[in-house]
Amino acid sequence: MGENDDSDIIEHHVEEEMEKKGTRSHAASSSFLGSVSPSDREGHSSTQSSHRLLAYSDALISIIATVMILPVAHTKMEDNEELRESVQLLLTTKIAVYLMTFLIVTVAWAAHIRLFQVIVRIDDCLALLNLACMMLITFLPYTFSLMATFPEKILGILLFCGCVMVIGVIQSVIVLYAFSRPFLLNEQIQISENQIYYKHHILKVIMRVPLMCFFASIFSFIFFELSYVLLAIVIFLPYISQCLKWCRSKAIGQVDETPDSMLFYTYLPNEPLSKERVEAFSDGVYAIVATLLILDICEDNVPDPTVVKEQFGGSLVAALQAYGPEYLAYFGSFATVGLLWFVHHSLFLHVTKTTRFMGLLNTFSLAFVGGLPLAYQLTHEFPRNSRNELEAIQISCVIIFFAGIFQLTIWVVALYNEQETLHPYVRYGGREHVFMLAKLALYPCVALGTFFLTCILSKFSASIFHLMEITVPFAFLVLRLLVRVGLALLRQIFCPDRPDPRTVVEEEDDETRVPFNALVT
Amino acid sequence: MGENDDSDIIEHHVEEEMEKKGTRSHAASSSFLGSVSPSDREGHSSTQSSHRLLAYSDALISIIATVMILPVAHTKMEDNEELRESVQLLLTTKIAVYLMTFLIVTVAWAAHIRLFQVIVRIDDCLALLNLACMMLITFLPYTFSLMATFPEKILGILLFCGCVMVIGVIQSVIVLYAFSRPFLLNEQIQISENQIYYKHHILKVIMRVPLMCFFASIFSFIFFELSYVLLAIVIFLPYISQCLKWCRSKAIGQVDETPDSMLFYTYLPNEPLSKERVEAFSDGVYAIVATLLILDICEDNVPDPTVVKEQFGGSLVAALQAYGPEYLAYFGSFATVGLLWFVHHSLFLHVTKTTRFMGLLNTFSLAFVGGLPLAYQLTHEFPRNSRNELEAIQISCVIIFFAGIFQLTIWVVALYNEQETLHPYVRYGGREHVFMLAKLALYPCVALGTFFLTCILSKFSASIFHLMEITVPFAFLVLRLLVRVGLALLRQIFCPDRPDPRTVVEEEDDETRVPFNALVT
Repeated sequence: MGENDDSDIIEHHVEEEMEKKGTRSHAASSSFLGSVSPSDREGHSSTQSSHRLLAYSDALISIIATVMILPVAHTKMEDNEELRESVQLLLTTKIAVYLMTFLIVTVAWAAHIRLFQVIVRIDDCLALLNLACMMLITFLPYTFSLMATFPEKILGILLFCGCVMVIGVIQSVIVLYAFSRPFLLNEQIQISENQIYYKHHILKVIMRVPLMCFFASIFSFIFFELSYVLLAIVIFLPYISQCLKWCRSKAIGQVDETPDSMLFYTYLPNEPLSKERVEAFSDGVYAIVATLLILDICEDNVPDPTVVKEQFGGSLVAALQAYGPEYLAYFGSFATVGLLWFVHHSLFLHVTKTTRFMGLLNTFSLAFVGGLPLAYQLTHEFPRNSRNELEAIQISCVIIFFAGIFQLTIWVVALYNEQETLHPYVRYGGREHVFMLAKLALYPCVALGTFFLTCILSKFSASIFHLMEITVPFAFLVLRLLVRVGLALLRQIFCPDRPDPRTVVEEEDDETRVPFNALVT
Repeated sequence: MGENDDSDIIEHHVEEEMEKKGTRSHAASSSFLGSVSPSDREGHSSTQSSHRLLAYSDALISIIATVMILPVAHTKMEDNEELRESVQLLLTTKIAVYLMTFLIVTVAWAAHIRLFQVIVRIDDCLALLNLACMMLITFLPYTFSLMATFPEKILGILLFCGCVMVIGVIQSVIVLYAFSRPFLLNEQIQISENQIYYKHHILKVIMRVPLMCFFASIFSFIFFELSYVLLAIVIFLPYISQCLKWCRSKAIGQVDETPDSMLFYTYLPNEPLSKERVEAFSDGVYAIVATLLILDICEDNVPDPTVVKEQFGGSLVAALQAYGPEYLAYFGSFATVGLLWFVHHSLFLHVTKTTRFMGLLNTFSLAFVGGLPLAYQLTHEFPRNSRNELEAIQISCVIIFFAGIFQLTIWVVALYNEQETLHPYVRYGGREHVFMLAKLALYPCVALGTFFLTCILSKFSASIFHLMEITVPFAFLVLRLLVRVGLALLRQIFCPDRPDPRTVVEEEDDETRVPFNALVT
């Protein structure tokens, strides 16, 4: 590199960051550079793009969100015990704790996204403050599970509220610090005249949660049931308030009271949520979940040399045969989680803007995905053709079904507002649209089919389930072909002699070609 | 969004991908668009940017690389046993397995990077093939630990070689598939006339490893010691061949035989390694390592309500006090890992191009980081002022020291070729350079200092260690100030009346300002 490409590098830095926020910022990027006077930018050579800090935070949060599935997965179930009872025992405590922790952590994560949609550049001080914040967020699941295990003790409540309050205080310090150095802020706020108003609005929103936790911790000394009500309100507050606002705006058609330029901290269901971070968080969760079983296998299923010598007559093959079902469970769950990730990846490839509501649906989908390895492991822990095995298989199907259905719902929500949220070539009516729909519908349909088949042919449930596991990856591989054949068949059946649909399809073909033509010309 | 921004979106897609490969590609992007004829691009609406696939792969591989630390961490050590013996027991088997697995997985990861530096766009078929490849890579650590536990059984060798062979075959299929659809390839190869040569060269390099594994698995039936020699060659092959080539080129000044445009699959130490993927992989490892202890805490340290009632008289505080040291270990290790990530983040912010050699040093640094939670946990497992505690603390210091030293080495290597690998404003001599050096040197210096202090004042070793844990984050917070004070002091001491250094410093100031001036003008 030469001497004279300094400007190139800085521009590259700025571009990189603009890139993250989609197409809208592209137009604004020149005004951003123009808005900051040279004297402002001088001496801030220590400011950095926040990209990697956020990627690291996403990785940490996604690990923490899925961690409470481990106590569920490691609950030992005896073969002769009825699965129904064990599952009900699990359902009441550990699964509920897992789901609640997942929700709490994703609420914290959404707050983190909102914060760093306002603050787009960081310096060393902000990076260190964020690490402190992360440390407390990773401690949240533990305090929550203490609270859930000892609901009548105030220590759990105090610890949980303490964590949330400290997180809130750190986030407020981050906001104050960033507003004292405006070059760290989003360019929209940077050029705005209402900077003070924004600061107060954001601080108000952030401090609401720790304040309620403060009251909850005080009430815990007097009347601890009330603190739980307060905490429940805290967690569901954004969803409640956004539902109410959305209903009101739909019913009365009322204009929102926040200024038009206030895109952040609105709690509207179509408030933008950084697509990149939703992807990074989902990638983290899928990656952890896909490897959950191999972690156990690596730790527990390397037989002890002395045991092999004494119990299996030195035959390693015989010793490993006992673990056969666990390898099968691992490959099955890895393939299913991997394919669900693949569908998620295809879906978000077509999405241009993620909204809060889509983020919520994604959270639900991920929460079910987190339960998959557990369900797969259960399918192999019981004797063949037992009632337990059948139920474990059916639970696996139900989990796959819901994980898939929520992905499909994201697509439906995106279609509902397709002008804003989807690339033009996948909008309603094109061939890519049909293909995407087929991809999203494959897992729910297969899961539903397997569920009902196992109800009818309960004797062959294990074989049906394994057959499903093996065929689905190949179905994805030839899906494009299947969709074409299916469309052709439908056309043959419903309108065998009308020429119109064919021309409609050709028109669609033209439509899908548009981007490339437009690019070339 | 309007109807007429289709081209904008596609361009955005293309840009996004160009972005990943740094500044060099920017110049080439126009030629890329020009090189592909419209008819080539038509109908490939299903091709996608490979960015997210690679991010997911990096997440999976980073989890797998660190997973073999779990069997080490969960080895129970009794208090009264001498740590020296336990550590030696661990060193001989589990730690060696951990380090080897880490190395093997990172070799597989480097091969994956090389492959996807050639293939820059993907379609559904490639995504599914890659998932299959990932599934086998995640199984590698288990097969390796089987092989290590039963070195004289051929099953372990066969399983390991089988995995590697299948991975090699899948990667070859990926290469063949991509070369049959040239629009998926790197634009450099796409416009090249030597495409066939490239294909054969790449296939030759990829197939070398499975071929050697094939021979190793055959030899295992006859004379299994030979298979280990072959496998060792396989793992170290890239490093051996690159060292030899590098030495030869330095000694004789010989020109490399590969064509000048052949930037990939060269095994030279300065072969580019995608900086983004090195960052993503490191983020994954740091995130897993930082949360390793909280995973254990969440799973094991929620006391049972009945136990609390019976043993602690219903006092939760008393029950939790027993876990105190574990919380401390968690916060300590999270802070240390987080700060090492922070240093890594600062370092790679200034790096413009990552080379294979820097990647190797980074791997060593990460391998040490992986051992940190274990070391921190040990520091609290032994009685106060025991010999074991002292040794655990000293081991922690050694691990921190090496993790930090390898980061520093990356910086030194980057400086050695600073024109190519560093941003101009951090090159040797500027103030940012001094600041970066201070950041990188802080942990090794502190670790070394703590180590020697605990040798001298062994009675206060725990206090010294905790003091270190608490002060280091604050040291990072005020490091910029410290560096300035330090520089001023040095100036005062060594040349109290010479005015020259001051002007030199001012010149440096000018230099750091250059990027911004260049941007404004």
